Amino acid sequence: MLTFEVLKTDPSSHARRATLTLNHGVVQTPIFMPVGTYGTVKGVTPASLEAMGAQIILGNTFHLWMRPGQEVMKSFGGLHAFERWNKPILTDSGGFQVWSLGEMRKITEQGVHFASPVNGDKLFMSPEVSMQIQTGLNSDIVMQLDECTPYETKGHITTEAEARQSMEMSRRWAQRSKAEFQRLENPNALFGIVQGGMFEHLRQESLDALVEMDFPGYAIGGVSVGEPKEEMRRIMAHTPHRLPAHKPRYLMGVGTPEDLVEGVACGVDMFDCVMPTRNARNGTLFTRFGDLKIRNARHKADHRPLDETCTCYACAGNSGVSWAEGGREGFSRAYQHHLDRCGEMLGPMLASIHNLHYYLNLMKEVRAALEAGMFGEFRQRFHAERARGV
Amino acid sequence: MLTFEVLKTDPSSHARRATLTLNHGVVQTPIFMPVGTYGTVKGVTPASLEAMGAQIILGNTFHLWMRPGQEVMKSFGGLHAFERWNKPILTDSGGFQVWSLGEMRKITEQGVHFASPVNGDKLFMSPEVSMQIQTGLNSDIVMQLDECTPYETKGHITTEAEARQSMEMSRRWAQRSKAEFQRLENPNALFGIVQGGMFEHLRQESLDALVEMDFPGYAIGGVSVGEPKEEMRRIMAHTPHRLPAHKPRYLMGVGTPEDLVEGVACGVDMFDCVMPTRNARNGTLFTRFGDLKIRNARHKADHRPLDETCTCYACAGNSGVSWAEGGREGFSRAYQHHLDRCGEMLGPMLASIHNLHYYLNLMKEVRAALEAGMFGEFRQRFHAERARGV
Ligand SMILES: [Zn+2]
Ligand SMILES: [Zn+2]
Repeated sequence: MLTFEVLKTDPSSHARRATLTLNHGVVQTPIFMPVGTYGTVKGVTPASLEAMGAQIILGNTFHLWMRPGQEVMKSFGGLHAFERWNKPILTDSGGFQVWSLGEMRKITEQGVHFASPVNGDKLFMSPEVSMQIQTGLNSDIVMQLDECTPYETKGHITTEAEARQSMEMSRRWAQRSKAEFQRLENPNALFGIVQGGMFEHLRQESLDALVEMDFPGYAIGGVSVGEPKEEMRRIMAHTPHRLPAHKPRYLMGVGTPEDLVEGVACGVDMFDCVMPTRNARNGTLFTRFGDLKIRNARHKADHRPLDETCTCYACAGNSGVSWAEGGREGFSRAYQHHLDRCGEMLGPMLASIHNLHYYLNLMKEVRAALEAGMFGEFRQRFHAERARGV
Repeated sequence: MLTFEVLKTDPSSHARRATLTLNHGVVQTPIFMPVGTYGTVKGVTPASLEAMGAQIILGNTFHLWMRPGQEVMKSFGGLHAFERWNKPILTDSGGFQVWSLGEMRKITEQGVHFASPVNGDKLFMSPEVSMQIQTGLNSDIVMQLDECTPYETKGHITTEAEARQSMEMSRRWAQRSKAEFQRLENPNALFGIVQGGMFEHLRQESLDALVEMDFPGYAIGGVSVGEPKEEMRRIMAHTPHRLPAHKPRYLMGVGTPEDLVEGVACGVDMFDCVMPTRNARNGTLFTRFGDLKIRNARHKADHRPLDETCTCYACAGNSGVSWAEGGREGFSRAYQHHLDRCGEMLGPMLASIHNLHYYLNLMKEVRAALEAGMFGEFRQRFHAERARGV
């Protein structure tokens, strides 16, 4: 089940404010979706995710197939009960991970033969297998199996002919994914994925074919795969607004806060990215006024929180009152610098909470701006503030 | 400031139920104190600690002296504001860590010369320095500097003469600690530490001298330093009940759940130990029915929580209702086995919550049994249940 209702559109861009209803609940878009590869968003509890306003999270079909495996997952009736997350879940198809196995896999029209990176077992992934696994996961949004067209392979930049071949196979796999999804009577929603590499005309061909197949939602794949930022932005500007206006659009694996705001302007409704959690573990924090490296000695004695305007647990404790509004219950930069220096787990825990909260709150502000008809102003202020420096 | 009121005593043992009032609040004893070496109880947030009923936590004078250092700490007015814990804190003296530096330190009557393990700086620790640092930490309970008498040194078991020499120095350091504590007008409470190795008559001599000095509370040190369990139990049975009945007694660094319950029976009021958090990170969980190794393959598909009677977040989610009482919001053993296999941070996070909750709840049950005049029955049932197997 999926319904999508556009509530408001921005006259100055392709941005829109919408409501996406799925089997496990309602999602307000534009939205950022935290990534929970192995059935856990790294470093945070489900309770904490809920407290910071996460509406939908990701799970990874390939990794959850390897561990804990389909049998255990089915005994729980799917991923929601296994990982204790009762709101919507989106699962990727497993295509990207299989593709990333490099020498260990062989791709044919039928599917992908590979050796399990966990125990060496010979395994086979195909559109049908992906649908079967995702049906077992019972994710609210299921992704078709696609071949993620690389930007380059060992220094060789993918040619137009290669990108076409890859895109055409993904298109055929979309058809097979849809057929198997229907045969399994999966009650959730299947998304098609637009491929075509860095070539607009291939993107258009892919898009046309997928629209013809009438999926309830569409993703833009094959971006954030190592290409220069301008290339990503070019595709982001090309494809989303060409997709059907009455269906949700998901830009896979993107990106920085700036990418998200610009992506919304391009008509994207849904984003996912590992940056907030990965950067948190490396001590890089996103803030309203730019990025902050907590390892830097200049934070050693700084009593301020990471972000003076943030109301997350790291910045405001349980008070919900930011430093700027007089709240003084948050953890200082000095303390978080200390935790990082001592290699204490609480460091990445607080950083993960803050970064995820930052991303989720950013999209909340985007939604509010769209509702108020002020997205253009918001966008300008956002870039100015981010450039100010922390 | 410290007041201690014994509310009830157990006729069948030396156990007692009391209230300990400190500058940052009231502590119900007997109590277990989570260890926050570097100004953080490993793997848990202060909010989570509070939710699981922690009343007082430990900080480590030596480590906090090294990092973040006295200057930063003083700018926060002490450890409470730095680590965002508003309830009582006890700090150790730093003696044990300095002693553990081995070849890197030289102990004299005056104090201990050593090289900083962080940056190699030549440093000096003495009773006076320890009091100065702890005054800066503003901990509610300050420990005297003592020399922790080892059980053995490179295979050589400490002799009576060596234990006497060490104990006598600790006694003189107690005097100096007290004098400096008073000179600094520290408003908190200073504890003396009974030493004497594995020799009862030395323990008695140490105890008599410290009682003469009239500390507001006493600790039993030099146990849990590598001695066989019977030796620890022998000293635990000897010393606590010989200390003044109207003052709190703290057994340092002990121990397993069984040690705690037996320690209470011996008249101990306060315990600390790194086991719950350290074992959590190694995947060893304490439960009412014995210990559980989550890495074991037998948990792979087990839907039950770690402990069917536990109401911690790991076992019961936010419901507070245990599995045994019909609650089904906790995380399964299967899920926690999966997190452990995947090396996910949430594994040690949930395990730390559970183990700390187990220890804190055990002491809560001990207090309830003492209040009800049922400690003897409780003790029997506790041992029987722990032996049942999980
Ligand atoms: Zn924050
Ligand atoms: Zn538990």
